[in-house]
Amino acid sequence: MSQTSGVTQRLARFVVETRWDNIPQPVRHQAKRSLINFFAVALAGCRTAPVEIALRSLAEFSGGKQATIVGRCERIDALSAAFLNAAAANVHDFCDTHVRTVIHPTAPVAPALLALAELREVSGADLLLAFILGNEIQARIGLAISPSHYSRGWHITSTCGVFGAAGGAGKLLRLDERQMVWALGTAATQAAGLCECLGTAAKSASVGNAARNGLWSALLAQQGFDGPPEPLAGVQGYYNAIAETPDLSRVTEGLSESWELMATSYKPYPCGFVIHPVLDCVLDWRADHPTAEVARIVVRGHPLLGDRADRPDVSTGRESQVSVQHAAAVALLTGKAGLDEFSNARVRDPDVLALRSKVELIRDPAFSTIAASVEITTADGRIHHRSQSASRGSDANPMSDAELEDKLRRAAAGWEPQHDVAPLIDAVWALDSSADVSALASLAVPRK
Amino acid sequence: MSQTSGVTQRLARFVVETRWDNIPQPVRHQAKRSLINFFAVALAGCRTAPVEIALRSLAEFSGGKQATIVGRCERIDALSAAFLNAAAANVHDFCDTHVRTVIHPTAPVAPALLALAELREVSGADLLLAFILGNEIQARIGLAISPSHYSRGWHITSTCGVFGAAGGAGKLLRLDERQMVWALGTAATQAAGLCECLGTAAKSASVGNAARNGLWSALLAQQGFDGPPEPLAGVQGYYNAIAETPDLSRVTEGLSESWELMATSYKPYPCGFVIHPVLDCVLDWRADHPTAEVARIVVRGHPLLGDRADRPDVSTGRESQVSVQHAAAVALLTGKAGLDEFSNARVRDPDVLALRSKVELIRDPAFSTIAASVEITTADGRIHHRSQSASRGSDANPMSDAELEDKLRRAAAGWEPQHDVAPLIDAVWALDSSADVSALASLAVPRK
Repeated sequence: MSQTSGVTQRLARFVVETRWDNIPQPVRHQAKRSLINFFAVALAGCRTAPVEIALRSLAEFSGGKQATIVGRCERIDALSAAFLNAAAANVHDFCDTHVRTVIHPTAPVAPALLALAELREVSGADLLLAFILGNEIQARIGLAISPSHYSRGWHITSTCGVFGAAGGAGKLLRLDERQMVWALGTAATQAAGLCECLGTAAKSASVGNAARNGLWSALLAQQGFDGPPEPLAGVQGYYNAIAETPDLSRVTEGLSESWELMATSYKPYPCGFVIHPVLDCVLDWRADHPTAEVARIVVRGHPLLGDRADRPDVSTGRESQVSVQHAAAVALLTGKAGLDEFSNARVRDPDVLALRSKVELIRDPAFSTIAASVEITTADGRIHHRSQSASRGSDANPMSDAELEDKLRRAAAGWEPQHDVAPLIDAVWALDSSADVSALASLAVPRK
Repeated sequence: MSQTSGVTQRLARFVVETRWDNIPQPVRHQAKRSLINFFAVALAGCRTAPVEIALRSLAEFSGGKQATIVGRCERIDALSAAFLNAAAANVHDFCDTHVRTVIHPTAPVAPALLALAELREVSGADLLLAFILGNEIQARIGLAISPSHYSRGWHITSTCGVFGAAGGAGKLLRLDERQMVWALGTAATQAAGLCECLGTAAKSASVGNAARNGLWSALLAQQGFDGPPEPLAGVQGYYNAIAETPDLSRVTEGLSESWELMATSYKPYPCGFVIHPVLDCVLDWRADHPTAEVARIVVRGHPLLGDRADRPDVSTGRESQVSVQHAAAVALLTGKAGLDEFSNARVRDPDVLALRSKVELIRDPAFSTIAASVEITTADGRIHHRSQSASRGSDANPMSDAELEDKLRRAAAGWEPQHDVAPLIDAVWALDSSADVSALASLAVPRK
């Protein structure tokens, strides 16, 4: 009982009391990297069907024009903007990952804070601090029940993201400790999302809700909308309902000393993480042999690569994101592995199909999950080897700031070649010296 | 596997294919009774703090004035109206109950349909049919996991209500079977709500969301927002995530032959059901002995009465709703058991406190949960007995139509003595002959 008492209150106090001065420099920088990556993936997703449909529907009910929709000229009320930007950021599964929980941490939190920053005066340091704290509590709430929570079918980005959005928004609103507990309670009772919906538009509903409902929970709490004292660990609370025995030590251990944001990975490729080391090998080899004709490819990797991505036959872009055969083939053929390479059209390309059939997969427990090797036989009979011990974007080999900037530039150019994102990039890196960030999100909208 | 396949599709088909002609007369009439009761409880709750705060906050983001808020002159967008009217209807726990699941069935469904009826042309028969079908699927989805789902801490009105709202709204929108499965999928991934929040404003968030998100799921599905084929019984779907082994036969057995709406109970008193037979005894006795001074009251009832309502000391109106001592005392003192008798002020009334201490409770397994007896000793030393074998409002002794009308009249008069609800009552009873019900909800707003 003593172990369970007060865990929500401890998180609330942590969010309320932590100051910008308490945040180490590397954590501050990582927060900016997460925002660069967020704008990249939100731009990449901003015109997909789930976002288009949700925007059309929400616009029928919204009168507000308070907030920016990343990549689009329409404006909408702040709650709906939080929904739409979160949905867009996560729609391609191209966003960042907190690997131990499999939470995509920025999609629910950043949109809530950016929308709020268009309603209330917020400094860059305020924004980064709120983002870091929201990220921290959602990761820790998830760590206590990982990996079983996700394995059971809960879409953990949604079910924990609502707490991150509530905590971060509550920080910007300067909630006191009691109000913060209320915000987390109203967030808890809105926590929802099922992995069964992955690959369909319905996924976007729970991710969008995490941002919207987290933001709303904080706004309501500020106005006196109360909640229970222990929504997480109470006998009829979050953890009990989702039928987990949480390891509550993981929620609070080292709180304010270690930062889960530092364990965030960013994806260079819009496909399953296990495929990434394979793509590193193939793309590197292709860069060195731009015209060589390929006769056969043998891929070797950790057994998880097979469990998750052994899909020699796929027919949709969505499926191709978890097919190592498709990924290797399309990367060999085009020398690229961006969103276009995982589109419906590419999957049906006869050249890709032909090459896909030449990919052979070997499961080898000697590899780690971020390692792989390829053996490429060219038409002239020569055999080429490449290997990767730590894939780009993994903890051990993180994407550089320049690579993240490049990801953002490519995403922006995908919809609007004239969209100059240099001001956006500059603004993110300079956030800690900005007194008012209300215009930040609007830099992610192409000028006409 | 065969048992689990297609349960969502079967429910979707049932909703899509069932016609008004298929609905037996008693079920049609019960639907109207549920609406009378709904307007009563929504009127009773329409100016409580959770509704006031949520309205103030939503109004900041909503530009629409499409829909009515029961009991209030403000208008708001249809999604927000669905939220607010559901929250208001459930806030006092005075609404109807499907006893086997403990779902309060009308609060999530009716507000979604009434809001939609202000957006699209809907006949009275359409409205009743959609209400009956939404009610049916939410009850059946809940029956498959009752009672464990509620016991574990899930607020089942919220977690199943979202399906009822989606199904009912989908029926009004004339979704086809595929779209209806999508709507139920987007509903499933938004299913949330924790009993830990009971007694706080946070409860209203999940109940309101059930109506709002169910309605929105149907609207999205109509526009092509897709979802998985088996959101309920899929391996990462609703039932698996909430960690239940559903009895799927209860979802589909007798579908379109029996009607769960007939198992709806309406509450004559705004307190726990187990207390109702005690109130019947006390109020009947007091009516016959209006001036007798009471020295001692011995209450005898099923052990559940003790488990749920043995609270000799309570300090808030909310707690008093589950205190048999308070209920017996206040009913003896005032001869009434309405909302005023369970207010914060009443709980602190010295006369109530004095009488409360004279209430003694005996648990007796010989009683059913809807039966009780009281033994009242008056100051003159005489002992009076009353007993109730089936409480008013229970399945075995349902409230009459006239009693429901009276409940509605009292609730309306509580906020606005001049509010004439006769046109509303007449309109509900005449629903099956109404070609357009867009003005129905507005009859629940007092004229200034």
